[in-house]
Amino acid sequence: VKASEIAQLVEGELEGGADPEVEGVAPLDRAGPRDLSFLAHPKYLSYVDASGAGALLIARALAARAADGRPRIVVRDVHGALARLLPALYPPRPHASGIHPTAVIGAGAVLGEAVEIGPYVVVGAGATLGDRVRLDAHVVVGARCGIGDDAVLHAHVTLYPGVRVGARTILHAGVRAGVDGFGYAFVGGAHRKVPQVGSCVIGADVEIGANTTIDRGSVGATEIGDGVKIDNLVHIAHNVRIGAHSVVIAQVGIAGSTTIGRGVTLAGQAGIPGHITIGDGATIGAQAGVFGDIPPGAVYSGYPARPHKESLRSQAGLARLPSLVKRIRALERALFGKESGEA
Amino acid sequence: VKASEIAQLVEGELEGGADPEVEGVAPLDRAGPRDLSFLAHPKYLSYVDASGAGALLIARALAARAADGRPRIVVRDVHGALARLLPALYPPRPHASGIHPTAVIGAGAVLGEAVEIGPYVVVGAGATLGDRVRLDAHVVVGARCGIGDDAVLHAHVTLYPGVRVGARTILHAGVRAGVDGFGYAFVGGAHRKVPQVGSCVIGADVEIGANTTIDRGSVGATEIGDGVKIDNLVHIAHNVRIGAHSVVIAQVGIAGSTTIGRGVTLAGQAGIPGHITIGDGATIGAQAGVFGDIPPGAVYSGYPARPHKESLRSQAGLARLPSLVKRIRALERALFGKESGEA
Amino acid sequence: VKASEIAQLVEGELEGGADPEVEGVAPLDRAGPRDLSFLAHPKYLSYVDASGAGALLIARALAARAADGRPRIVVRDVHGALARLLPALYPPRPHASGIHPTAVIGAGAVLGEAVEIGPYVVVGAGATLGDRVRLDAHVVVGARCGIGDDAVLHAHVTLYPGVRVGARTILHAGVRAGVDGFGYAFVGGAHRKVPQVGSCVIGADVEIGANTTIDRGSVGATEIGDGVKIDNLVHIAHNVRIGAHSVVIAQVGIAGSTTIGRGVTLAGQAGIPGHITIGDGATIGAQAGVFGDIPPGAVYSGYPARPHKESLRSQAGLARLPSLVKRIRALERALFGKESGEA
Repeated sequence: VKASEIAQLVEGELEGGADPEVEGVAPLDRAGPRDLSFLAHPKYLSYVDASGAGALLIARALAARAADGRPRIVVRDVHGALARLLPALYPPRPHASGIHPTAVIGAGAVLGEAVEIGPYVVVGAGATLGDRVRLDAHVVVGARCGIGDDAVLHAHVTLYPGVRVGARTILHAGVRAGVDGFGYAFVGGAHRKVPQVGSCVIGADVEIGANTTIDRGSVGATEIGDGVKIDNLVHIAHNVRIGAHSVVIAQVGIAGSTTIGRGVTLAGQAGIPGHITIGDGATIGAQAGVFGDIPPGAVYSGYPARPHKESLRSQAGLARLPSLVKRIRALERALFGKESGEA
Repeated sequence: VKASEIAQLVEGELEGGADPEVEGVAPLDRAGPRDLSFLAHPKYLSYVDASGAGALLIARALAARAADGRPRIVVRDVHGALARLLPALYPPRPHASGIHPTAVIGAGAVLGEAVEIGPYVVVGAGATLGDRVRLDAHVVVGARCGIGDDAVLHAHVTLYPGVRVGARTILHAGVRAGVDGFGYAFVGGAHRKVPQVGSCVIGADVEIGANTTIDRGSVGATEIGDGVKIDNLVHIAHNVRIGAHSVVIAQVGIAGSTTIGRGVTLAGQAGIPGHITIGDGATIGAQAGVFGDIPPGAVYSGYPARPHKESLRSQAGLARLPSLVKRIRALERALFGKESGEA
Repeated sequence: VKASEIAQLVEGELEGGADPEVEGVAPLDRAGPRDLSFLAHPKYLSYVDASGAGALLIARALAARAADGRPRIVVRDVHGALARLLPALYPPRPHASGIHPTAVIGAGAVLGEAVEIGPYVVVGAGATLGDRVRLDAHVVVGARCGIGDDAVLHAHVTLYPGVRVGARTILHAGVRAGVDGFGYAFVGGAHRKVPQVGSCVIGADVEIGANTTIDRGSVGATEIGDGVKIDNLVHIAHNVRIGAHSVVIAQVGIAGSTTIGRGVTLAGQAGIPGHITIGDGATIGAQAGVFGDIPPGAVYSGYPARPHKESLRSQAGLARLPSLVKRIRALERALFGKESGEA
């Protein structure tokens, strides 16, 4: 592909005079003369000179700082440009409709047109698959599940009975959805299981990472809104609701009956307790330990999670705690003639 | 079902005069006129008025605070009542004995009466299954495993060779039990694997959540006591022992050779180091980072984990650290005429 | 096996006169007269007397402190000795070459000599398996993957297309490698998937724990170096590189494009952000929250992660924060005649 064609595709401007042929995209430190590389973050400015890349896709904001004679395509948003460019350079494998002869399809299951069902897939009784649904090898779809058009379930996904998955949603390998939630009544010295009879409803255009687990509702539903993106190894407990277009990074845990608003970001390993509300557009920092409701648009971090600026000030204070102790001792000596015996 | 029949089943008192027909149970904000809803926590008192529920299951402690003309069933323990009621309203799918023709049963395996074995299940040589054991699609049971009567293994569970699972125990999708522990000897600049030759013994009436991993013993056994409940995505390392009726919430990690007592609660994402003892009845807070033995009955939280009350006081102190710095500066100015240069 | 033969095998010295027959290895509190037990850590010194073990494998450093008449084999490194001894006492199950008739092998796949392929394994088109590769039941190997000689993939492992696995590497049940990374461009109010077209390259002599997830590169590769050991439920994001012989304990998360050096240790539940570098030989403590580059050889811990000694001092300060508040109040009363109203 000519660099000029790429510039047109991503609505960028080709600068530098030449119009080289590009065969692939590669990071700065691995690109060769036939590769387009990219610069989206100032952190990597120093890699530009040594890079062997034949051309550069670069953010307008950084263009002036990367003085470089190479042909370059200048765009406002590098990641947005890559999202357009990569499918053109690396076409996804074509949909291959057909049902592998080893697939076990339950009684009364309804399959849409041109579904692609791999080896050893099990589809439960009464399940409904939309058009062009793709189930990779070893997927298990429980009874009465419903899967929307063009959804993709990678190998080894498990849907418990009755789970609903929206159109174009992608579930990665090892996702478990509709699992019994963690609900017990302590009776007579033992935990007695409270049957988990609710549902699990995953919206359209959702993507869920590998080995993530989503419990069904105890009664009522666990709901994942349209466009939500969830990373690997996340735990979502019963009756949680996540609003549209929210983002949940790897290893986050959300306890039961919590409501996450729309457009929320939960960073990696954050812990969200049960029965709270996180407002629309809020951001929770990595590893944060949340203890109560979070207002819309707020940015919280730390343990216990507090507004991010306060949290940073406390962390700075924590770092100089040893010196504060010394200063208190000096004050005590000056004022009382001796230190307090307390510590 | 009549409300009066439900009241009788859960040993509650029907109040409010009427005796409506109930078809299901639903949360307050989703219940309709044919639904029974429930109120167990004061947090949800404000939802009662707007609820469309035809009847209410309510905790005695909250009954006076929810003034409401609706028929209501008053009980001491709402969750205990639900544990009785839900199986009556939503009968679990009946056990369906039979062995799917695609199941691969190894040489010398012994199957109890009325087992239910799904498609593509693999049972290793010499394994023993009790009566009415249910193995869902794609379960893999290693050689010489033993599974007690009425145990249920959901789809995609893996038992490594020799794992023992007690009666009535439930393993959710993607559980891995009897995995090699993380044991190496550093020899000649590389980590050399120490063979993991111990066993993995899971008691009766245990429930283990989706994608949880349990290592086998290095030598000796990893042991999960009777009645223990473990949530999703928990890691339990080699030689850990968990006493009866303990509860381990999602994403907890327990390092090797640690002993957890009976009736312990480990809240979500807590980290428990190796070679320590957590006493009977202790509670460890969410995300806590434990660093040593915990006495019986103690409640610990925070990082590093300390008695919960101390931990709360330190957290409160942390929040006002920036103001403490100001107060120290004011003292220094008053006493020394200038601030310390230290921070 | 005679104790004297064991002593010879592990290059230890047999002391105590007798030369008993040993049938197995067991922990101190479970060993019987036909068992060899072992003592590697002073923590367990008190268990020696009560142990029923017929003989003891003991670290030279502890030998003088465990006064005990039993036959004993004294070695410098108990775990190294066990790594030699256990395979002799508990021989691993022999490799059983053969391809189960239910395995589905894709067009153009190339299988080495004496491979062992279990029931319901699916090998994608164009994949290459080295000699003696073992794929347990239900393994799914994507198209064009390459697996080195003597590698072992336990049940239910998923390799996405194009993943490379080195010789002698062990992947435990439920590992997902080559998963699409978490990459989106926010366009028009929604997250648009950035195709993940990079590779995933796992070195030789690696071991990866159960249900761990490893993303493929976005462009470029995710790389796990030779001899790296990764525990259960770890998350490794796209474009991460881990240097040779590093160790990653359970539930660690590593965000995208981060470089981990050689011989690094990341302890359990630590969180590593994206786009940073952790130097060779560094150690990151359990649950640590790292926020920037870590120098080679450094030991960091805590949240936010700082040099371990500083972190310990801050934690000590945190524990006495309540008493510091009292001391500040006392100073204020003495100096100003009243406390500050600030807190």
